[in-house]
Amino acid sequence: MPKVSDKWPRPRPSQSSLQRRALHHPGRIWVLLILGSLTLNLVMIALLASLYEGGGTPGCKAERSILVAEKKKSVVAAPQQQSTAEELVSAEEISVSSTSGKRPASKDAIINLDHGDPTMFESFWKEMGEPGDITIPGWQAMSYFSDVTNLCWFLEPEFADEVRRLHKLVGNAVADNHFIIVGTGSTQLFQAALYALSPPDAPEPMSVVSAVPYYSSYPAVTDYLQSGLYRWAGDASMFDGDAYIELVCSPNNPDGSIREAILKSRYGKTIHDLAYYWPQYTPITDAADHDIMLFTVSKSTGHAGTRLGWALVKDKDVAKRMIKFIELNTIGVSKDSQLRAAKILKAVSDGYELPVSQTNHRLFDFGRQLLSIRWQKLQAAVKASDIFSLPDFPLALCKFTGENTGTYPAFAWLKCEKEEVEDCEGFFRKHNIITRSGRHFGVEPKYVRISMLDRDETFHLFIERVLMLHH
Amino acid sequence: MPKVSDKWPRPRPSQSSLQRRALHHPGRIWVLLILGSLTLNLVMIALLASLYEGGGTPGCKAERSILVAEKKKSVVAAPQQQSTAEELVSAEEISVSSTSGKRPASKDAIINLDHGDPTMFESFWKEMGEPGDITIPGWQAMSYFSDVTNLCWFLEPEFADEVRRLHKLVGNAVADNHFIIVGTGSTQLFQAALYALSPPDAPEPMSVVSAVPYYSSYPAVTDYLQSGLYRWAGDASMFDGDAYIELVCSPNNPDGSIREAILKSRYGKTIHDLAYYWPQYTPITDAADHDIMLFTVSKSTGHAGTRLGWALVKDKDVAKRMIKFIELNTIGVSKDSQLRAAKILKAVSDGYELPVSQTNHRLFDFGRQLLSIRWQKLQAAVKASDIFSLPDFPLALCKFTGENTGTYPAFAWLKCEKEEVEDCEGFFRKHNIITRSGRHFGVEPKYVRISMLDRDETFHLFIERVLMLHH
Repeated sequence: MPKVSDKWPRPRPSQSSLQRRALHHPGRIWVLLILGSLTLNLVMIALLASLYEGGGTPGCKAERSILVAEKKKSVVAAPQQQSTAEELVSAEEISVSSTSGKRPASKDAIINLDHGDPTMFESFWKEMGEPGDITIPGWQAMSYFSDVTNLCWFLEPEFADEVRRLHKLVGNAVADNHFIIVGTGSTQLFQAALYALSPPDAPEPMSVVSAVPYYSSYPAVTDYLQSGLYRWAGDASMFDGDAYIELVCSPNNPDGSIREAILKSRYGKTIHDLAYYWPQYTPITDAADHDIMLFTVSKSTGHAGTRLGWALVKDKDVAKRMIKFIELNTIGVSKDSQLRAAKILKAVSDGYELPVSQTNHRLFDFGRQLLSIRWQKLQAAVKASDIFSLPDFPLALCKFTGENTGTYPAFAWLKCEKEEVEDCEGFFRKHNIITRSGRHFGVEPKYVRISMLDRDETFHLFIERVLMLHH
Repeated sequence: MPKVSDKWPRPRPSQSSLQRRALHHPGRIWVLLILGSLTLNLVMIALLASLYEGGGTPGCKAERSILVAEKKKSVVAAPQQQSTAEELVSAEEISVSSTSGKRPASKDAIINLDHGDPTMFESFWKEMGEPGDITIPGWQAMSYFSDVTNLCWFLEPEFADEVRRLHKLVGNAVADNHFIIVGTGSTQLFQAALYALSPPDAPEPMSVVSAVPYYSSYPAVTDYLQSGLYRWAGDASMFDGDAYIELVCSPNNPDGSIREAILKSRYGKTIHDLAYYWPQYTPITDAADHDIMLFTVSKSTGHAGTRLGWALVKDKDVAKRMIKFIELNTIGVSKDSQLRAAKILKAVSDGYELPVSQTNHRLFDFGRQLLSIRWQKLQAAVKASDIFSLPDFPLALCKFTGENTGTYPAFAWLKCEKEEVEDCEGFFRKHNIITRSGRHFGVEPKYVRISMLDRDETFHLFIERVLMLHH
């Protein structure tokens, strides 16, 4: 890779925010310099002291009146569901088995496509080489703090810069009028958002809903601590009430559909989970501009092991409460992960923006091409089998590529059309293919979710096996 | 040898003596201020400007610290007291201010010793050089899974190996008959342990207790989600009941004392927080062998920004539930942090075990020497002041060093003996020193906790200032 990176006008975090501000306001500093006298100095010192003794504008005082749950609340009573919390949790558990994340050992081995483990992207990053590598010296990033001038004091400035740059490049979300909050994966940010949107002193926990089929982790992650702040309340389309948090996953996990909030109430809140709103999966039709939007490197670049997500949040008080959650939950977020993710996102943007960048450095092209081939193979195999069906997706103009493109979701949402097969997951398991049943997503077990993001050898073995499943 | 750089007393002679004289006699503060240069003036102005402007986060940084500092006074959380969780949580919040983690900008700047930010160790790792560095290729550690043959499927084997090796070297804990569980800091593992030890179907939340003075985060972290599984119940010595989880922090944060569980019931459980049970802080008298033991790189090696802790857990079912918590909370733990921590722990063990290892690669020697000097300085300053007192610690045989050694806690637990000073934190704040009040730890505000782990320049400024505080 030619050394052009130095010429590229990437905004770099300045060493000191004080310096930055001083440079942004030369006029003010000049006036202050003229007026700078001992008196002023003393006034400043006195003011500063008073700030530390209890000033502050009321707008920033996010009161957190958290009441101890005096009695165990019946957290489970989702209006539409009769199952107990324990059943819910055990049904929705992340199931890790000895085949998870592994290459199949032989032709007949178990193929595990239960998780969306994005190992398909490994080959891209091997090809990328050095620009994707990072070295962290032993003495670096030791402090708890990243940038105390930022509301999100544990956010590494380099990472924030690369997040804004990437959204600008891809055009999938408006980052500029939003606070960036970094999280230990979007899972932690999802919980931070629930915490932020639930009034601490409400008589009842806030209802958390999502339209079926919804991401299988939502119910378990909402209910595992039996929080008095919020509780899972099932399918959004069945919800009857004014106060709620609606989870809108778009493109949707598991079925890849583009979604909007279906509930409308002035008391309702929405969280937009946009983990899959990237050009390898779906046409980028507009820059999303919602109140809370969640993203993760797991699905954008394939770095699931880095456990790093980010939220774009419009409202300052909501942002503050989300930050408070992350302070209490994990006292911030791994700086090593943030530094690495900054490097990874930089390599992705450089791949498109550097004048001489190589085509094999273009992540979204790589992802889209590979997924479109995989989807063709799967559709052909499904057609040949005559016992399954898949959703259809229309073409749409992608503003990122400038072309009419198809939709290639990270998961196949497959339905068993065989009348005698009620349990599609069980059917696949008989053929040593592990999938995730529709019942985890709030629908019938005739559906299964299948990862499309595994390594080539696993995917090919899967297609071979589907081709053998004749009617 | 990384210089155990105790630069005190060697400030620039002219300035220092003038300053000291000036500050011994409050009237001369004015003289000092007159001598305050334009640079100082600018620093104050810039600092103030940053506090008020705040870029995207207007005005919030200062307020957050203030919020916490000036809140509720009565926080002592004996279960019998009717203090609400609101009081508890606001008082126990982690307070981040514009000075957190920063070097003081001038002699008179605010010194922030509120957090135990372990930046004192930076100079050791700078001296260590390459053996402490890590390079992570772009394609590595992309999967969610680390080792699915391990109960803790997200635990990197290299990290687990280095944890066992280090405990064997130091002799501070028995790791061999325990499961290792990695967490996003010991804070996450603490919550995982609460989750694991609380029956999901009990009629009442489990009571969580700890003897005063207890670590200030315990109440807030226990109660912020208003869990139906567990709730904070205050001082262990005031607890009356059979079912509880007792938190035993040893050496104790904030006061450095060696502790054992004080409650005894066959239905009670204990969590041992051994974050500070390392040879730089305290003599290693025995290999701890408790049911659940928590450790963190933040305090052992100084890598707080890495957000990595580990638990040693005897019971398999408890381990499984802790792992389940981490799955639901963050789907595992950053592999980048784990790989880096493995390298760091390896460098620490190599420093003692490699035949040709250099003495400047011996972390615990470095830490103990520096802390013992710092404690001498502090004890001298406290004695000179005649208005404070510190706990006394006996010498003990350290099995790691083979010598009788003293105790040099990571925090000074300081009491204001001045009768008219009820609020020791406020007293220090008037002298631009930020500490954490005893009330956050469940005791009277005559006590404050002060970090001993900051960078040299911060610590020296602190000692200078204490020396000026005469009776």
